[in-house]
Amino acid sequence: MSAQPAVGFIGLGIMGLPMARNLLRAGYPVCALNRSPGRVATLVAEGATTAASPAALAAISDVVLTMLPDTPDVETVVLGVDGVAAGIRPGAVFIDMSTIDPALSRRLADQLRAAGIPALDAPVSGGEKGAIEATLSIMVGGDEAAFERILPILQALGKNITRVGEAGAGQIAKACNQLIVAVTIEAVAEALALASASGVDPAKVRAALLGGFAQSRILEVHGERMLNASYAPGFKAKLHKKDLDIVIAAEHDAHLRLPAAELLRERMTELAERSPDTDHSALRTLLAPVTA
Amino acid sequence: MSAQPAVGFIGLGIMGLPMARNLLRAGYPVCALNRSPGRVATLVAEGATTAASPAALAAISDVVLTMLPDTPDVETVVLGVDGVAAGIRPGAVFIDMSTIDPALSRRLADQLRAAGIPALDAPVSGGEKGAIEATLSIMVGGDEAAFERILPILQALGKNITRVGEAGAGQIAKACNQLIVAVTIEAVAEALALASASGVDPAKVRAALLGGFAQSRILEVHGERMLNASYAPGFKAKLHKKDLDIVIAAEHDAHLRLPAAELLRERMTELAERSPDTDHSALRTLLAPVTA
Repeated sequence: MSAQPAVGFIGLGIMGLPMARNLLRAGYPVCALNRSPGRVATLVAEGATTAASPAALAAISDVVLTMLPDTPDVETVVLGVDGVAAGIRPGAVFIDMSTIDPALSRRLADQLRAAGIPALDAPVSGGEKGAIEATLSIMVGGDEAAFERILPILQALGKNITRVGEAGAGQIAKACNQLIVAVTIEAVAEALALASASGVDPAKVRAALLGGFAQSRILEVHGERMLNASYAPGFKAKLHKKDLDIVIAAEHDAHLRLPAAELLRERMTELAERSPDTDHSALRTLLAPVTA
Repeated sequence: MSAQPAVGFIGLGIMGLPMARNLLRAGYPVCALNRSPGRVATLVAEGATTAASPAALAAISDVVLTMLPDTPDVETVVLGVDGVAAGIRPGAVFIDMSTIDPALSRRLADQLRAAGIPALDAPVSGGEKGAIEATLSIMVGGDEAAFERILPILQALGKNITRVGEAGAGQIAKACNQLIVAVTIEAVAEALALASASGVDPAKVRAALLGGFAQSRILEVHGERMLNASYAPGFKAKLHKKDLDIVIAAEHDAHLRLPAAELLRERMTELAERSPDTDHSALRTLLAPVTA
């Protein structure tokens, strides 16, 4: 291992590219891979290297980090042909920072542990802005010693970094976050819709409520968006829909019935089908008086 | 009118008694009425007077204030035989601080306006503690000049006092508040249930989420209650159920469909039937893994 561990970074999307860039800036040697090669070229021009496959990347990395859109992407990149699992070396650490089904996080951790590799699930919140400014919140599940070892890498990417528990616990925490955010957006949307449809200024209602028990970051930030009907993302409805699919998968795995989570999965799916790239706070637009 | 306007105060419940006491302490002459006379005697011992009926009380008051449990109580006390409307004098102001159906607030305002009496709806939040400490949030609907005139009285009862709009607007704001609070409690309850049932420490999840978009007063205060299973009220489930009935009445009047509000009315009704006097955060207890 060199002075700085070599990081293999797979997935240079809206989140991944600025995150990989922050690792380069922090002095880590970064080997990068992405489905579309243009973004790899961008990062190589800034000092990164690249590799022929996830396996080849893993073979030269001390830490392999993935930041991918969805559960099947992570499964393919790690367990597929020429995947990370085929190349990663004993002593290396695998970190998946994607938001995926906790069941896959646990399965990956089991399979890699059998090969002597600790795997951490470390999903983030804070969006593109947090990724660029290295202020992401990072919720981590998995082996504690591995977590301590790679903490400096996460500290180059975010600020509020919490190890929540064993493998999959980071994804569960993220699922809890996305559940609360979705349901609270709906709560605020319904309240402001009720005010408007009752002839009461929703801006005054929001202001009156911010000091009391109805206070939330959502009432502050997304409430403001709803008042201005400013629904440029932000966080896209189609991504929150995907995250609520994960919540519902986790709900079933836990043998629970979570009625508000189920309702919001329906609502967000409806919004995502209408306007996939709108901000999730556009749930407000689904609420309108029915004129008979 | 004397130096301090004479206040007629009807309804000396958990909220009303300390509120009337605060008016006495602020130097207002208070004439008090209550269904059960024991509480009137308490206040008379502290300097209040009493009257034979709401009409008789109204006839000697510059401001008539009601703080009653529910919509039908307000209707009876104001419009019933020997009610406030039968005695209140031109130039007086009527203030209803109960949480009731906005439709009745508007109807009372219309009827009293026809008799030359401005009526304000001024429901509160902040609970018994806020009533005792005179730190209630007060959401006001109705005539602006009357509001300015009686503002010193409200300032003897609360801190965050907002005139939201015309008659009924205070009740709409309160309904919005109770809607958001109920739905947010459910959101937090479902998230913490998901963490627990998935084998993840809900206290760590709550801590990890408090810094981000999932933050709310409910996650702070009621999330803590859920972690400790400490459900002594606080705010009783049966009262929040009543308030959600008002939300649903307002929803229908506004020709809206508010699915999360409807869901929470169902959930809170279920909780109130099981445990009417438990804190509303005991919604968490309705969520448990189904063992097949």
